[in-house]
Amino acid sequence: MVKANLHFLDLKDSYLFSTVREKTEAYMKAHPEKEVLKLGVGDVTLPLVPAVIDALEKASAEMGDIKTFRGYPPEGGYAFLKKAIIENDYAERGVKIDDDELFVSDGAKCDTGNIVDIFGPDNTVLVADPVYPVYVDTNIMSGRKIKYVNGTAENGFCPEPPDFPADMIYICSPNNPTGAAMDAKKLGRWVAYAKKHGAVILFDSAYEAYINDPSLPHSIYEIEGAKDCAIEFRSFSKTAGFTGVRCGYSVVPKTLKAENGVSLNALWARRHATKYNGTPYIVQRAAEAVYSDEGKKQIKANIDYYMSNAAVIRKTLSDLGLTVFGGENAPYIWFRCPFGMTSWEFFDYLLEKVQVAGTPGSGFGAMGEGYFRLTSFGSKEITEKALERISSLSFR
Amino acid sequence: MVKANLHFLDLKDSYLFSTVREKTEAYMKAHPEKEVLKLGVGDVTLPLVPAVIDALEKASAEMGDIKTFRGYPPEGGYAFLKKAIIENDYAERGVKIDDDELFVSDGAKCDTGNIVDIFGPDNTVLVADPVYPVYVDTNIMSGRKIKYVNGTAENGFCPEPPDFPADMIYICSPNNPTGAAMDAKKLGRWVAYAKKHGAVILFDSAYEAYINDPSLPHSIYEIEGAKDCAIEFRSFSKTAGFTGVRCGYSVVPKTLKAENGVSLNALWARRHATKYNGTPYIVQRAAEAVYSDEGKKQIKANIDYYMSNAAVIRKTLSDLGLTVFGGENAPYIWFRCPFGMTSWEFFDYLLEKVQVAGTPGSGFGAMGEGYFRLTSFGSKEITEKALERISSLSFR
Repeated sequence: MVKANLHFLDLKDSYLFSTVREKTEAYMKAHPEKEVLKLGVGDVTLPLVPAVIDALEKASAEMGDIKTFRGYPPEGGYAFLKKAIIENDYAERGVKIDDDELFVSDGAKCDTGNIVDIFGPDNTVLVADPVYPVYVDTNIMSGRKIKYVNGTAENGFCPEPPDFPADMIYICSPNNPTGAAMDAKKLGRWVAYAKKHGAVILFDSAYEAYINDPSLPHSIYEIEGAKDCAIEFRSFSKTAGFTGVRCGYSVVPKTLKAENGVSLNALWARRHATKYNGTPYIVQRAAEAVYSDEGKKQIKANIDYYMSNAAVIRKTLSDLGLTVFGGENAPYIWFRCPFGMTSWEFFDYLLEKVQVAGTPGSGFGAMGEGYFRLTSFGSKEITEKALERISSLSFR
Repeated sequence: MVKANLHFLDLKDSYLFSTVREKTEAYMKAHPEKEVLKLGVGDVTLPLVPAVIDALEKASAEMGDIKTFRGYPPEGGYAFLKKAIIENDYAERGVKIDDDELFVSDGAKCDTGNIVDIFGPDNTVLVADPVYPVYVDTNIMSGRKIKYVNGTAENGFCPEPPDFPADMIYICSPNNPTGAAMDAKKLGRWVAYAKKHGAVILFDSAYEAYINDPSLPHSIYEIEGAKDCAIEFRSFSKTAGFTGVRCGYSVVPKTLKAENGVSLNALWARRHATKYNGTPYIVQRAAEAVYSDEGKKQIKANIDYYMSNAAVIRKTLSDLGLTVFGGENAPYIWFRCPFGMTSWEFFDYLLEKVQVAGTPGSGFGAMGEGYFRLTSFGSKEITEKALERISSLSFR
């Protein structure tokens, strides 16, 4: 008889966002006269920029003409997009990436999920708690043992490498959910740790476009030696509002080897060729437009818009005497709940007192308990209104 | 040290299409004065139909307006597309599929590849040789044992269930590469076999739009009892020329259980939620347009165009005295090579004698040796010219 993958039964049901939604809806139903402001979602709200829309419309028209129609895309991405990525995201920062080290995809969530295919089941996985749940769940599904390092207020939610070994290390910087961004020194210590143990770093830099501090690295490959020990994931979702367009990419250097010298680049290329059929042509043209002069300007304006929301959130919460992290090089603001409240107690408190819905930190792991996340992806009006209401409260 | 998934090393390198390309290019280089006609590719050549282009352009414009912008799509697909699929592809054929049994994706290759995630490693896989390589390769990658049943001229390349048990059974009908389509009786015997052994049928009906014979089933769920033992995969790639647009879907009935009563629907839903982030909004609107009155008419015209190519190929080869399969309810024509030639010998013969490039059947498995595939996806002009040249040869 057919047997299911029983590792799925080890997954915890992820009630975080559904419970947030249910609680919020229940409150709205009980208090129809109150306006609830939502600063919990991680989805963007500004539309695609004109340069991207132009590219989408132009590419759509091409698909309707026999002379310009395109069928199956190359599994790893069209040369025009790969060139734009390599030049803008890497060469400009002094990093050399070859064409066949880059794999265009339908997003970083898919890539960080699918990458587990190329690793054996006996690797030990290391993640920093609090954590983006995909890293944990995809490894539980494939039966790997997971160890944790703790993000705390003391280490600024950027933990140091531990004194025990690991084989696969997930790092998200700038971080979801804490908004913390690692500097080159700290990343260097992680690269040294990975090289010492023959481990691979799975570096998720989906939020790099939100880095303001010019001293911070945008790519792990800015760290000496990282091409021997790291895979990088990027996404157009938060950079260019592509959450509903679906485009991202991964970099797997050819110098990266697993035990017995197995090339992880060759395995990932084979995985793409066998289980993926390429990113839509129109989407790749849209992503290419992100790198045009007009596109860059327009996208910068959107990121500035979100980051001015982040500044408002950060300043208001700090002025109220709360301990605040993130929001300077990331779209997420992470803070300690007042009065020693748990994350869910503070969720209820904020909803009932001022009708603002955020995200309880405990949903991202044990170390998130007692913390809370707000996002800067709402509109300026909603964000300012929500923070005005919050500043009417006293947390001292 | 990090360990790779060593099952990847058990994969055979798939040289089929690259060898076809290399041999064709070498010939063209050596004979620049000759025009080579290609009837080997499985990709479509007609552009997207106007109804689809209109939908793409309208949806693109919506993404540029803050009032109509859409972020993250629902992982399983938008309600508007699910409704169109359920009504047109299932309800109209008397099959009841619930909304939460249907999962919209970026294509049937991805779905048939990713589905292996929800099955345990100890299942025995059964495939019919010749075979679409994805079924085999994705199971080798995840370390499963594969058994074969043989497609032969005697069984019309539609083999009967074997006398040994299996747990996961791949069936592609209408078939790639042989073009054979199973009737309800034969499919019924496979459903009975699956139920007897508690197996799951993975039914790939990516080519159902090419069925002409009204007595043939388009969905496995037209067979009594199949909802207890079958998963179905569909694609817009060949139906509507979406090879470069990327949209497909899978159906996993809630009544389908693995050992110990584990719900495969729940596992697949969790896989989608964890490792996939939804199909682009613009793509789902394009797929919805396939089901509009205009869309249906326009797509039917394209399929008729390809099928009249298939008829030309089929008739010409039959008239030459060759033993021909497929091409009546499928876009592929499969035939025995003349004079006892191997598949590659005939490839060279056809290229050198009349400058036509096809696909050697041996590339699809041992049972394909001595057979050859031509496709109907070329233009009418190229197809007719190629077949005129072939009919100048004598195979008797």
